[in-house]
Amino acid sequence: MQYRLSEIVAKLGGSLEGADVTVSAIAQTDRAKPGELTFLTDKKYIKTLPNCQASAIILSDKDAQTLSLSISKIISDNPYLYYSRVVNLFHPKPRIAVGIKDTVKIGKNTLIGKNAAISDYVVIGENSQIGDNCQIHSGVVIGDNVVIANDAIIYPKVVIYSSVTIGNNCSLQSGCVIGSDGFGYAPDASRHWHKIPQIGGVVIGNDVEIGANTTVDSGALSPTIIEDGVKIDNLVQIAHNVKLGAHTAIAAQAGIAGGTTIGKHCQIGGAAGITGHVTIVDYAVVGAASNISKDVTVADIYSSGIPAFKYKEWAKIMVYMRNWSDTQDRLKKLENELKTKNGSI
Amino acid sequence: MQYRLSEIVAKLGGSLEGADVTVSAIAQTDRAKPGELTFLTDKKYIKTLPNCQASAIILSDKDAQTLSLSISKIISDNPYLYYSRVVNLFHPKPRIAVGIKDTVKIGKNTLIGKNAAISDYVVIGENSQIGDNCQIHSGVVIGDNVVIANDAIIYPKVVIYSSVTIGNNCSLQSGCVIGSDGFGYAPDASRHWHKIPQIGGVVIGNDVEIGANTTVDSGALSPTIIEDGVKIDNLVQIAHNVKLGAHTAIAAQAGIAGGTTIGKHCQIGGAAGITGHVTIVDYAVVGAASNISKDVTVADIYSSGIPAFKYKEWAKIMVYMRNWSDTQDRLKKLENELKTKNGSI
Amino acid sequence: MQYRLSEIVAKLGGSLEGADVTVSAIAQTDRAKPGELTFLTDKKYIKTLPNCQASAIILSDKDAQTLSLSISKIISDNPYLYYSRVVNLFHPKPRIAVGIKDTVKIGKNTLIGKNAAISDYVVIGENSQIGDNCQIHSGVVIGDNVVIANDAIIYPKVVIYSSVTIGNNCSLQSGCVIGSDGFGYAPDASRHWHKIPQIGGVVIGNDVEIGANTTVDSGALSPTIIEDGVKIDNLVQIAHNVKLGAHTAIAAQAGIAGGTTIGKHCQIGGAAGITGHVTIVDYAVVGAASNISKDVTVADIYSSGIPAFKYKEWAKIMVYMRNWSDTQDRLKKLENELKTKNGSI
Repeated sequence: MQYRLSEIVAKLGGSLEGADVTVSAIAQTDRAKPGELTFLTDKKYIKTLPNCQASAIILSDKDAQTLSLSISKIISDNPYLYYSRVVNLFHPKPRIAVGIKDTVKIGKNTLIGKNAAISDYVVIGENSQIGDNCQIHSGVVIGDNVVIANDAIIYPKVVIYSSVTIGNNCSLQSGCVIGSDGFGYAPDASRHWHKIPQIGGVVIGNDVEIGANTTVDSGALSPTIIEDGVKIDNLVQIAHNVKLGAHTAIAAQAGIAGGTTIGKHCQIGGAAGITGHVTIVDYAVVGAASNISKDVTVADIYSSGIPAFKYKEWAKIMVYMRNWSDTQDRLKKLENELKTKNGSI
Repeated sequence: MQYRLSEIVAKLGGSLEGADVTVSAIAQTDRAKPGELTFLTDKKYIKTLPNCQASAIILSDKDAQTLSLSISKIISDNPYLYYSRVVNLFHPKPRIAVGIKDTVKIGKNTLIGKNAAISDYVVIGENSQIGDNCQIHSGVVIGDNVVIANDAIIYPKVVIYSSVTIGNNCSLQSGCVIGSDGFGYAPDASRHWHKIPQIGGVVIGNDVEIGANTTVDSGALSPTIIEDGVKIDNLVQIAHNVKLGAHTAIAAQAGIAGGTTIGKHCQIGGAAGITGHVTIVDYAVVGAASNISKDVTVADIYSSGIPAFKYKEWAKIMVYMRNWSDTQDRLKKLENELKTKNGSI
Repeated sequence: MQYRLSEIVAKLGGSLEGADVTVSAIAQTDRAKPGELTFLTDKKYIKTLPNCQASAIILSDKDAQTLSLSISKIISDNPYLYYSRVVNLFHPKPRIAVGIKDTVKIGKNTLIGKNAAISDYVVIGENSQIGDNCQIHSGVVIGDNVVIANDAIIYPKVVIYSSVTIGNNCSLQSGCVIGSDGFGYAPDASRHWHKIPQIGGVVIGNDVEIGANTTVDSGALSPTIIEDGVKIDNLVQIAHNVKLGAHTAIAAQAGIAGGTTIGKHCQIGGAAGITGHVTIVDYAVVGAASNISKDVTVADIYSSGIPAFKYKEWAKIMVYMRNWSDTQDRLKKLENELKTKNGSI
């Protein structure tokens, strides 16, 4: 597959500067070969440009003006987004063949939309709906009373429990589990745990993507909610009755405990932990490996992850931490002595 | 489905105060409608009661006496547990149909109990036993020499390796893996890793529940052990030869390293980490995001999770931490100066 | 199964001291019975030896000389490795039966090697290759253009996306996902996220083992790379375009963010987090629950995990941490006062 730059601009916008060359691939600055298109989306790659062999580059107007590059340019307001669209041009996502394999099991009163593609050994329960153009890969299990709207891609081995609703254009990576029982138990007098039924289900909006082996629990009485445009990475835990605001992004291994509400356009870093029953304001950013333990009412960046030290230094720091109370006492004692001295002199 | 309050009390105990009204649902205080039953299990919801539209409420005798509520009351010693039983009344858990689907593969010498329900594309190995009333959902894979006692619910896509024993009335959520190889390798002289066989299997007691995508590894020579009544949330790692004492609860994304023994009735918070080969006493509580690195011999609450700061404050704290040694030296120097001065004056 | 010690030495090397007894099992020092073989691989078990009932022991020459044990001995340079080989003698790993079950679905132009064993309900895409002697357990899904070399063991429910290459003698535990989409999105002006295509695939070397429910994402344009001999535990996240150097070991729940390169022979502790786009030198060790946020250029041990305190002590430490800035000011003030005083006196 190859395109002239003018064809790309006609499809994706932006403006062309320089010769209307033909390009056969898109590649990073340090890997692109003659006849290929590259992109500048991060200043740290500017230093690689002098040796770059690409025949054309996608970049911002500002960078185009600052850097005196002799190759052809596609100028874009958002080179990163432009780059991703060019990748899609060169590598259109393969689709699984339309049709329902004869090993698929579908429960009664379940409706399948137009142009759906359902692979081998998929099992779908009763009273469910699968929208138009959905691609459901091998081995997926979908429960009863599930609604999946149009254009979903459900990768192999995803499990969707009963009473889950999923909007248009969502993708669920392999092994993610949607609607598993929330972790709620009532203790009795002898401290044995009794399961609280988890019947609230999950409601997921449009354009949501959920990563591999991530778990999203059913709400207890009312649903767990994931609004439009939310993107969730791998191995994330979304507990019962969490509400994730639209266009929030959550990196791998983060965990959101039960009943917590996260605002719109938030960014939650990898392995961050958000405690239960708190509310986080729109546009908040939580750093990797950081813990939120109370409401966040101001949109800001929040951190508590500690970058590692050499072990010997860290061992010393741990001693200081254990003796912190003593150190504070010593400081107080010095202050008192000096005050006495000041008074006495 | 609807019940008179007297019917509920007849089934579940507790005592009725006020009119024997009929209720058609159970809902939270802020969502309940006229004709519905609500519950008070946490003091923070007291403020919502003046606007609550429910026709009846489950609550403790003490709260019933303190609050002057005009609606009907069910008085219970344990309103949270009572609530969970009422939810079960209104929403009896659906069961999968008894019988073995013809796509199920069962190895030789494997016995299936009475009233078992085994869904499509389940594969069970040889010399295994599945107890009475078990529900095994679609796509589950069970190995050889596995014993599952009565009344288990095994959700879709669970994998149970060979040599695993599971007691009565257990539930395993989707994607959890029981009996995978423990992470044991012997290094050779060139620091290549050689696998230590993991043949100990897993022994799980009665009334154990294990969350979605949680992993429980096989022991090396002797089994990994999970005692009666243990509840484990999603994405938890239970390494080889761990022993979890009865009625311990472990929240999501916690990890228990190899050879560690956790006592009975412990509570392990989300994303907590317990190092290998330690012992934790009964009734210990480990906070979320906290790390246990040595034996815990006193039942208490243990923490090392740091709540997040605004990034700028945290960056300052990280500077203090890096310079902690210097700060301690400055303090020591001040003490010495003052001592000298005290001596000299 | 039973062996004379001389038979074991003939098969596995080492030297025999004492009577050439017959042993019927291998067990830990505190569990071994008469007629069984035990092993000493950690000094902390020396104290259990006086009560040990084993008839023979594997140990180092040094320990053999130091301890005056009357039972037969197998002397080995590496008793831990020797022990693991003896376990393999007594418990040869069961293999699944050679052959392809008739429920297996294989796409066009896919080649299956000699002596492959492929269990029920496996689905393999097009243009893929499965090497000789591979064992592919029930319910595995493998995409298009996948190459798996010889002697792989792929446990139930593993998912391998398209464009993944796996070397010889690898094992993938249940539920792990290889080649899922990397977490890359370009924001537009309204802060909606647009997926960056992830087409780089994954390249895995020889002798790699990957744990249960671990996720390894596809690279964006170029592949994610896992070199020979790497061992990865359960629930680990390997993000897009990570490169793991040969013979590195990564413990459970660790996460490696996108674009990071980890050297050879590194050890990454449980729940450790490595940020994106950093490089870690060969032979580095990262402690459990520690975070690496920049390049590591010196092979050393790195830590930032905090062992838990009793909650009351920890609450006090958190107060000190919040007031750290104030404490530093107080120290500075004392220094200034003393300097003034020193000047004035």
